[in-house]
Amino acid sequence: MESFFSFLEKRVDDCSSLLCIGLDPHVSDLSAPTAAAARDFCLNLVKQTSRYAAAFKPNAAFFEVFGADGWIALKDVIDGIQEESNRMGSMIPVILDAKRGDIASTAEAYAKSAFEKLDADCITLSPYLGKDSIEPFIQNSEKGVFLLCKTSNAGSGDLQDILILNEERGKTKEGDLFPLSSFVPLHIKVAQLAQTWNTKNNIGLVVGATHIDALKRVREAVPDLWFLAPGIGAQGGELESALKAGLRKDGKGMLIPISRGISRAEKPGVAAAELRDSILEIRASIFGNR
Amino acid sequence: MESFFSFLEKRVDDCSSLLCIGLDPHVSDLSAPTAAAARDFCLNLVKQTSRYAAAFKPNAAFFEVFGADGWIALKDVIDGIQEESNRMGSMIPVILDAKRGDIASTAEAYAKSAFEKLDADCITLSPYLGKDSIEPFIQNSEKGVFLLCKTSNAGSGDLQDILILNEERGKTKEGDLFPLSSFVPLHIKVAQLAQTWNTKNNIGLVVGATHIDALKRVREAVPDLWFLAPGIGAQGGELESALKAGLRKDGKGMLIPISRGISRAEKPGVAAAELRDSILEIRASIFGNR
Repeated sequence: MESFFSFLEKRVDDCSSLLCIGLDPHVSDLSAPTAAAARDFCLNLVKQTSRYAAAFKPNAAFFEVFGADGWIALKDVIDGIQEESNRMGSMIPVILDAKRGDIASTAEAYAKSAFEKLDADCITLSPYLGKDSIEPFIQNSEKGVFLLCKTSNAGSGDLQDILILNEERGKTKEGDLFPLSSFVPLHIKVAQLAQTWNTKNNIGLVVGATHIDALKRVREAVPDLWFLAPGIGAQGGELESALKAGLRKDGKGMLIPISRGISRAEKPGVAAAELRDSILEIRASIFGNR
Repeated sequence: MESFFSFLEKRVDDCSSLLCIGLDPHVSDLSAPTAAAARDFCLNLVKQTSRYAAAFKPNAAFFEVFGADGWIALKDVIDGIQEESNRMGSMIPVILDAKRGDIASTAEAYAKSAFEKLDADCITLSPYLGKDSIEPFIQNSEKGVFLLCKTSNAGSGDLQDILILNEERGKTKEGDLFPLSSFVPLHIKVAQLAQTWNTKNNIGLVVGATHIDALKRVREAVPDLWFLAPGIGAQGGELESALKAGLRKDGKGMLIPISRGISRAEKPGVAAAELRDSILEIRASIFGNR
């Protein structure tokens, strides 16, 4: 059986792209403040950019804000991506950016909603509730998750940079003294956990392209995992440093999600092509052509 | 202007109850696997239990799983709670259990979805993305949040119990040695942060009733914050120990959410009344009647 990341890598090879097109129908960008306008906005973007898309990433919030109509639009957009994939003869993975995180039967319901009802291929999740909250999403190796590790926002440090004692529980005792070298930031611990949980090749990490040092640290900690690295463009992240810090040794392992940088361009298709090519050029300058 | 927790406390006083009725329409409990059946299941529960409900807590996942129809049902349920409140002459807060967590304009869209589109009064959120991810939800003091602190599931320890260095950044230097007393579990740090962020009396914490020691520790760390303490009943938490560990000195500060223990009872109204009374009796045994 295929795994989510073997599916993604196939698409990355098919389109020679690491670009993940974000589908964020901000109300302010729409022709009308309606779910139908959000759907049309996204479907137009899909059509114009599909050749360059390693993946599409619809953001649940911008659909939820329209209530029930928004969920119809979201399903229409995912269906539209599948139709476009069929037309091209190369399936484009759909990553639902929903950042869910809950337990037991609730997590199962969210997994069912994302993977069966909406038919997404992958979902973003918070790791805060622990492994059992992730389980229902990773049972089927063909479906994948990106766990939030180090997010691109300024406030990400509030929790994610906290220094934690990287010792196994039960191995510490009163009187022990720990030097600073015993500590790692929490996001590194999350990366390490994700790696141990990734037995089916379907767990990746969200690591913001706005924090180059963190990107480098996480890549060192987990050389093989896929990253979804938001923050290039509107959030100020710089493409070349991000790719240098985050690409795997095989020149893959990193999806670059871009939303407004493409959707607000005069010609989104051209903007996507240029971004795809910039990524390839930078990659070639790092690794040589491959 | 009123704050969310002054609103909640008024309702707690009106109905002499700390019971939060969970509205979790599990498909297996419904007369048919449809959104309409989920709505009817919840509205029936609302009608039968409203006299004893300090709050209602619909769980977004069990509606989302029905797609767009589920969102219509969720809105109908929230509207139904408001009608029931009007009928009784005492407004019952609606806590949307959605465990969202995202940044910037995405967080704003989720806040708009929960508070404007659905008209919930409060939402559960993950703290993993930091303060700026919470901001859009707490701007309006009348709307509240419960931040996940120590969740009720077995896997909650994977991240939430990790020992962290409780020192201000920049105050450590190479060569420093830290004794075990310098560390606190991550969930205590989250509680401390929530307290500093709670300038408008609209931030509470989710602290599972399944972890009595943690409940005690968090209550010591933040004597004043409201807790939402799931896990009594189906998940095995014990009511008396939980109340002893988690109640504030004023005998409030803790909502006890119960879902299946009420919805699966032969007579949900009777089950809710009994649970409300058990909580009051235990509270009286701890504090004396008040």
